[in-house]
Amino acid sequence: MGPAIPVLAVVGVGLIGGSYAAALRRAGHVGRVLGVGRNAQSLARAYELGLIDDTATAVEAAAQADVIMLAAPVGAMAKVLAEMRPHLKPGIVITDAGSTKAEVVQAARAALGDRIDCFVPGHPIAGGERVGPDAADADLYAGRNVILTPLPENAPRDVALVRASWEACGAHVREMDVQAHDRVLGSISHMPHFLAAVYVAQVARSGDAAERLALAGSGFRDFTRIAAGSTEMWRDIFLSNREAMLTELAALRAVLDSAEQALERRDGAAMEALLEEAAVCRRGWKLGNTK
Amino acid sequence: MGPAIPVLAVVGVGLIGGSYAAALRRAGHVGRVLGVGRNAQSLARAYELGLIDDTATAVEAAAQADVIMLAAPVGAMAKVLAEMRPHLKPGIVITDAGSTKAEVVQAARAALGDRIDCFVPGHPIAGGERVGPDAADADLYAGRNVILTPLPENAPRDVALVRASWEACGAHVREMDVQAHDRVLGSISHMPHFLAAVYVAQVARSGDAAERLALAGSGFRDFTRIAAGSTEMWRDIFLSNREAMLTELAALRAVLDSAEQALERRDGAAMEALLEEAAVCRRGWKLGNTK
Repeated sequence: MGPAIPVLAVVGVGLIGGSYAAALRRAGHVGRVLGVGRNAQSLARAYELGLIDDTATAVEAAAQADVIMLAAPVGAMAKVLAEMRPHLKPGIVITDAGSTKAEVVQAARAALGDRIDCFVPGHPIAGGERVGPDAADADLYAGRNVILTPLPENAPRDVALVRASWEACGAHVREMDVQAHDRVLGSISHMPHFLAAVYVAQVARSGDAAERLALAGSGFRDFTRIAAGSTEMWRDIFLSNREAMLTELAALRAVLDSAEQALERRDGAAMEALLEEAAVCRRGWKLGNTK
Repeated sequence: MGPAIPVLAVVGVGLIGGSYAAALRRAGHVGRVLGVGRNAQSLARAYELGLIDDTATAVEAAAQADVIMLAAPVGAMAKVLAEMRPHLKPGIVITDAGSTKAEVVQAARAALGDRIDCFVPGHPIAGGERVGPDAADADLYAGRNVILTPLPENAPRDVALVRASWEACGAHVREMDVQAHDRVLGSISHMPHFLAAVYVAQVARSGDAAERLALAGSGFRDFTRIAAGSTEMWRDIFLSNREAMLTELAALRAVLDSAEQALERRDGAAMEALLEEAAVCRRGWKLGNTK
């Protein structure tokens, strides 16, 4: 019996796509791996590192691959899918690793038309500061959560194929609907990045920013770590998940207002109740995966 | 020549006070150490651990000590100082480790009256999750910042004595005025705790909180770590630093408003500019001490 995925094509062989290829190769889950991308240097490096066996155009990948992983920025996916559309090999399954899902699904529907059934949207909740093929790591997904948001048009067999590939990477796979994914991720991933950026910008704009930063300690360090991330990526994620973010921001402002009012009226009991609610929640929480 | 501080009294022999005593003892900077506190069990444990040589009442400490370190909650300092006031040994120097300074100075002025000259306010920027005498650590202050906010009434000799004690603990000492301290700490220490608590409370109140928390990752983990801290301590700090916090909150809301408006009008350029400002600031920042 051959590998579960005879030919895999990865569009964007960086941290996310490269790690997926490396993990599947190590698990014996793939035969041949094709790398697709705009950056020739990046593809050459991926080849050198053994992440891919060959490079291919989007059209070649569509015609040859059994599974295509789109690990390109959310904004670039529509164009790639439209290029692939006329050349899709029968039975091909396309999945992605985009951080938001409603916009990706909308773009995929527009690009793939009646072939939307072959697109199984996904999102691995993993990442890191490093980028590019050199950051690829066969262990990146071990013990991490991957969310699939299957479409009504997907064949269960195709969803199972994508699920099995992530499980071969060592990930925990769960299925959610598209709106729930974007709401939940908007809350527990995108909102912290948004607030950390707003907070750091406010400190940076203060007249005595240098003195403040010189005295900042480990609380500041951890609270603001994510504000150092990729600005282009997070701009795209915020805009892509705009609806869910605005809904969360309204809910956040309601709590912020009540906390500020408690402070204004020197209401220690209300302040402590809020802090206690947060502390109980946070103390009871554990990172649900090993990394 | 005997030790720089023949008799030290520590009011509150927990993480902060106990670590100060342990570091000074290891440095040969103190002779005898007296422990003062309301919790007999805690004092017994501090004695067992060798942090103190004996226990004392506030009155005894005032009459016998050369230096008194107030490492009690900010709210408890006024009462202790008022008890000590009629019994202060000539030449005594009192300092503290409170997280805010304006309110502490106000309370000290009210309690000490014309003896305010002996009170040199201080704040070590160090801490940790653990509390009590068992958490005391002679290395806690090594490489950390300690801020002194001397009063116009202080004799330079007394400020130098307090400074030298912190330097003997391995700390970097800097002087600031009381208002600058509270503004700077309000911004880079208190505000992150306030925002982290508001954010976690908002997540905890959502209808699908369990699902959100199950999918939260390492960004959430670091952004919210400080929300698990002591609720009583942070309630007191927020109320004690109310003026500075309200000023910072107004500045933060202005940035939050503009970020939200950029999102509302799908303004990618404005969003990216804000993210870039924050990322540049955060990437250029380093924790200014070794822990």
